Amino acid sequence: MNASEEIIDLNADLGEGVGDDASMLELVTSANVACGFHAGTPTLLLETCRAAADAGVRVGAQVSYPDLAGFGRRFIDVAPADLVADIVYQIGALEGIARAVGTTVSYVKPHGALYNSIVTHEGQAAAVVEAVGLVGGDLPLMGLPGSAALRLARDAGMPTITEAFADRAYRADGSLVPRNEAGAVLSDSEEIAGRVVRMVSDGRVVAIDGSEVVVDAESICLHGDTPGAVEHARAVRRALDEAGVSVRGVRRGGRSGGRSDS
Amino acid sequence: MNASEEIIDLNADLGEGVGDDASMLELVTSANVACGFHAGTPTLLLETCRAAADAGVRVGAQVSYPDLAGFGRRFIDVAPADLVADIVYQIGALEGIARAVGTTVSYVKPHGALYNSIVTHEGQAAAVVEAVGLVGGDLPLMGLPGSAALRLARDAGMPTITEAFADRAYRADGSLVPRNEAGAVLSDSEEIAGRVVRMVSDGRVVAIDGSEVVVDAESICLHGDTPGAVEHARAVRRALDEAGVSVRGVRRGGRSGGRSDS
Amino acid sequence: MNASEEIIDLNADLGEGVGDDASMLELVTSANVACGFHAGTPTLLLETCRAAADAGVRVGAQVSYPDLAGFGRRFIDVAPADLVADIVYQIGALEGIARAVGTTVSYVKPHGALYNSIVTHEGQAAAVVEAVGLVGGDLPLMGLPGSAALRLARDAGMPTITEAFADRAYRADGSLVPRNEAGAVLSDSEEIAGRVVRMVSDGRVVAIDGSEVVVDAESICLHGDTPGAVEHARAVRRALDEAGVSVRGVRRGGRSGGRSDS
Amino acid sequence: MNASEEIIDLNADLGEGVGDDASMLELVTSANVACGFHAGTPTLLLETCRAAADAGVRVGAQVSYPDLAGFGRRFIDVAPADLVADIVYQIGALEGIARAVGTTVSYVKPHGALYNSIVTHEGQAAAVVEAVGLVGGDLPLMGLPGSAALRLARDAGMPTITEAFADRAYRADGSLVPRNEAGAVLSDSEEIAGRVVRMVSDGRVVAIDGSEVVVDAESICLHGDTPGAVEHARAVRRALDEAGVSVRGVRRGGRSGGRSDS
Repeated sequence: MNASEEIIDLNADLGEGVGDDASMLELVTSANVACGFHAGTPTLLLETCRAAADAGVRVGAQVSYPDLAGFGRRFIDVAPADLVADIVYQIGALEGIARAVGTTVSYVKPHGALYNSIVTHEGQAAAVVEAVGLVGGDLPLMGLPGSAALRLARDAGMPTITEAFADRAYRADGSLVPRNEAGAVLSDSEEIAGRVVRMVSDGRVVAIDGSEVVVDAESICLHGDTPGAVEHARAVRRALDEAGVSVRGVRRGGRSGGRSDS
Repeated sequence: MNASEEIIDLNADLGEGVGDDASMLELVTSANVACGFHAGTPTLLLETCRAAADAGVRVGAQVSYPDLAGFGRRFIDVAPADLVADIVYQIGALEGIARAVGTTVSYVKPHGALYNSIVTHEGQAAAVVEAVGLVGGDLPLMGLPGSAALRLARDAGMPTITEAFADRAYRADGSLVPRNEAGAVLSDSEEIAGRVVRMVSDGRVVAIDGSEVVVDAESICLHGDTPGAVEHARAVRRALDEAGVSVRGVRRGGRSGGRSDS
Repeated sequence: MNASEEIIDLNADLGEGVGDDASMLELVTSANVACGFHAGTPTLLLETCRAAADAGVRVGAQVSYPDLAGFGRRFIDVAPADLVADIVYQIGALEGIARAVGTTVSYVKPHGALYNSIVTHEGQAAAVVEAVGLVGGDLPLMGLPGSAALRLARDAGMPTITEAFADRAYRADGSLVPRNEAGAVLSDSEEIAGRVVRMVSDGRVVAIDGSEVVVDAESICLHGDTPGAVEHARAVRRALDEAGVSVRGVRRGGRSGGRSDS
Repeated sequence: MNASEEIIDLNADLGEGVGDDASMLELVTSANVACGFHAGTPTLLLETCRAAADAGVRVGAQVSYPDLAGFGRRFIDVAPADLVADIVYQIGALEGIARAVGTTVSYVKPHGALYNSIVTHEGQAAAVVEAVGLVGGDLPLMGLPGSAALRLARDAGMPTITEAFADRAYRADGSLVPRNEAGAVLSDSEEIAGRVVRMVSDGRVVAIDGSEVVVDAESICLHGDTPGAVEHARAVRRALDEAGVSVRGVRRGGRSGGRSDS
C-alpha cells in the first residue's frame, strides 16, 4: 500500500452551543450532532445540520442517555428495552432535522457516558446495536475498536467505523489514559498532528509508557470545544495533506465500502 | 352519492399513559400518538406504535409545544422558526419509532394549545405547514376545517384531513362550545353516535341553540381518555355500521385520495 | 414496655398522580411527597401538601435523581457534589411549597434508585447526609436500617427514621426479596396487617425461608399506588388499633424525640 | 437632599453559565440568580450563590416560566394557579440553595417573558404577587415602575424595588425601546455611566426622541452577559463613586427601609 491510498475521516462534536463550529466545519469530514438528550434544542440541531450540509460535511447522530442536566456524562442504568427506544427516537429526530435541510444521518456515534458504557456493558451495547439496526438503512456505528458494541455490531452484520483520539494519551494496552490522570490530554498542535499521521500511515501510536500500540482507526476524533481545538484541527489537516493522506468521510457500509474505491 | 359510498375515519389520542388503549385500537382507524413534547417516553411511544401496527391502525404524529409540565395545553409564544424545528424534530422522532415497529407516520395532528392556536395564529400556522412540508412524503395535516393552518396547507398544495368532534357541542357559527361552558361536552353514548352518523351522512350537526350547522369532516375525533370513552366509541362504531358507513383511515393524499376508490 | 407504649408511623408515597391519595391520607401519618425530579408538577405538589396539611399528616421530601422519564427508578452515577446540590434544591423547593399551605417538610426520604443506592454507595450516601445537614433544622433522614446513609447520618449526629415494608417479603439476612423474584410482594391484606403488628410489637418478621428476622422500624412503608393499596392500609390500621399500637408521626429528632413522651 | 444621601442598588443576572460572573460580583450589589426553570443546574445555582455570598452580594430569585429550551424568553399562557405554584417552588428551591451556602434570598425578580408579561397581564401579575406573599418573610418584588405587578404588590402592602436599565434606550412615555428597533441598546460605557448617574441623581433620563423622562429606580439593571458588560459595569460604578452616590443593596422592606438610614 502506498501513501496515496491512505484515507481517513475526521470527526468532531458540533452543535453543542460551545466552540467555533464554523471553523471546525472547514476541517472535519464528519460532524457528530447532538440529538437533544444531552444538549441541543431542535433549532440548534437544525442550524448545525444546515451548516454541515452547506460545508459538505456528513452528519452523525450523537445519541445519549437522557441527561440534559449532566450533559450525558453520567452513567444511567437504563434498561436495555428503554435504551433501544431512546436511541431510535433520537436517530429519528435527527434524521427528520437532517432531511429538512437536505442532508441525512450517515452514522451513529454514542456520546459521553453511553460511549464509555458500551465498551464493556453487554446489555446496553446490545441495545445500541439493536436500535441502530431497527432504524435500518445500513447505518454504521462509530466507536472504540475492541468495544462490546462494535463487536456485537459486526456479529450482526452491521457496518462499523472505528475511531482513535487525536489529543488523548494511550496506555500500553490500547486504552485511553483517564482524563483525571496526568498527561491524559495532549495540548501541542504539532505533536497531535504528528501522532495522527502515524496512526493513519502506520496504524500505531506511542503509548504514555513509550511502548508502541496498534491503533485501528477509520476515523480520528478531534475535540471541537477545547482550547486550541481549531488550531489542533488545522495542524492535523495540514499534516495529513503533507503526508498524502486523503481526508474524507467513511461512506455508508463502513470500512469495506469506504475503501473499496481506493 | 348513496349511503354505501360514505367513508369516515375515526381518530383518538393514544399512548398518553391514560385510558384503555387496547379497546380503543379495536374501534378507531387512526391513532394520534404523542411525540414526547407534551407526553410520552420513547418506550411508551414505541409500545403504542407497535399496538397500533398490530391492530392495523394508522399512526399520526401528535405534535405539541414543548410543555411536559402543562401537557401541551398552554399557548407558548414560540417564534415560527423555532416552531418549525420543534415540529420537524417530533415528526422525525415518531417516524423513527414507527419504522422500528414496521409502520410509519401517516398524518400530523397538532395537539392541545397548538391545535387551537393555529386556527387563527397565522405565523404559527405557517410554521406548522412549513414543517410538515419539510418532512416531505406528502404527509397530510389533520385539523379544524376553516383553520388558518388547513387553509395554508391547501394553498401550498399539501393534503389535509378535516375533522369534527363526536362529543363536543357546536355553536351556530360552527365553532366548538368552550369546555368551561355548560353543555360543552356530551356524555350520552347514543346521542353522540347519532350525531356522528348525521355528521357523516348529512354533513350537518345540531348546534347548542338548535340551529343546523354544516360540518366538513373526513375524520371524527373520539376522546380516548374521558369516562365512558370506550363505550362512546363502541356506540359510534355500531351506529356507523348500521348506517352503512365504511370506517377506514384516510389514505396519504387526503380526501381525494381517500375517496377515489369509492 | 407494655402494648400501650407502642408507637408507629405509617408512611406512603403520595402526589405522584396515581392512586387514591384522599383515602390514604386518612390512614397514614407521613406523606412522602415528590419534589419534581421523578414526578410531580409544582401544582400537584402544592395540592398534595395542602391535602396532607388538611388531614394532619406530616410531609416528607421524597428526593430523587433527576429522572422524570424513568420515574427515578434508574441508578445515575451523579457525582457527590452534584447530588448534594440536587437534594438541597429539592428539599428547598418542597419546603417553599409546604410553607405556602401552612405546613413544613418534616423528614427526608430518598426515592427509588437513590433509596437503594445509598444502602451501599458510600459516596452518594455521604452526599445525601451532607445535603440534609446543609438544609438544617434537625431534619431526620428516613431509610433502611443498616444502610450506609443511616449509619453516616447517625455518625453525624443527625436524627434518623428507620423503616420496614408492609407488603414486601424479607430474606433471612434482613434484606428485601427483589421484586423480580416470586413472592416478593404480598397481596393479602390480613397477612400484611398481621406482619406489621408483629414488626411493631415483637420487632420481628418471618422471612421467605421461614426463619425469623429482626426488624428495626420506626415507620412502616405502605404502598399508595398498588392494587389494593387502600384496602391493605385499612387492614394495617385496624390491626394496629386492635393491638393497642398508637399510630403517629415521628417527631423531629427521630426515635428518641418521638418516643420521649410515651 | 444632597448628593451624599443618594443610594442605589446595582443588579445583574448571574449564574446562567455565560459571562464573567467573578468580575461582575465585584461591581454589583444584587445578583439575580436563575432558579432552574429557564437556566441553571442545582450545582451552578449553588456555586453562584456561594460566590455571591463570598463577595457580600445579595441574592435575588430570578423566577421564570418553565422553559429551558427557550431560556424563559417566550410568553406561556400559564394559568394563575399554576404560576403561583411554579414561583413558590422556584423561590423555595433557591432559598434552600442559598441557605446551604450561608446566605438567603433577599428579593424576587421575574425573568424574561414573565418580567414583561406582568407589566400588563393582570392575572399573571396577581399570581406573582400572591406567590411572593405565600413565601413570606417580607420579600420585596423587583420590577418595572408602573407595572401591574408592582402596583398589586404595593396594594397588598408588599415591599417593592423599582428598577431602570443602564444600557437601554427609553421612549418618551417611559417604556423601553424594543430590542428589535435601532438604538435600543447602548454600547458606549461612558454614555451608559453618565445616564445612570443622571437617573440616580436627577431621577431623569433622555429619551430616544430627546425629551426628558422621569425614572423611578431604586436599582439599576446592568447586563452581565453582553459584550462589554464588565467594562460598562466598571464605568457605571466609577461614575457613581465620583458623583458621591452610595452603591448598596436595598434592604428587606424596599425603599422606605432601604433609605431610612440616609
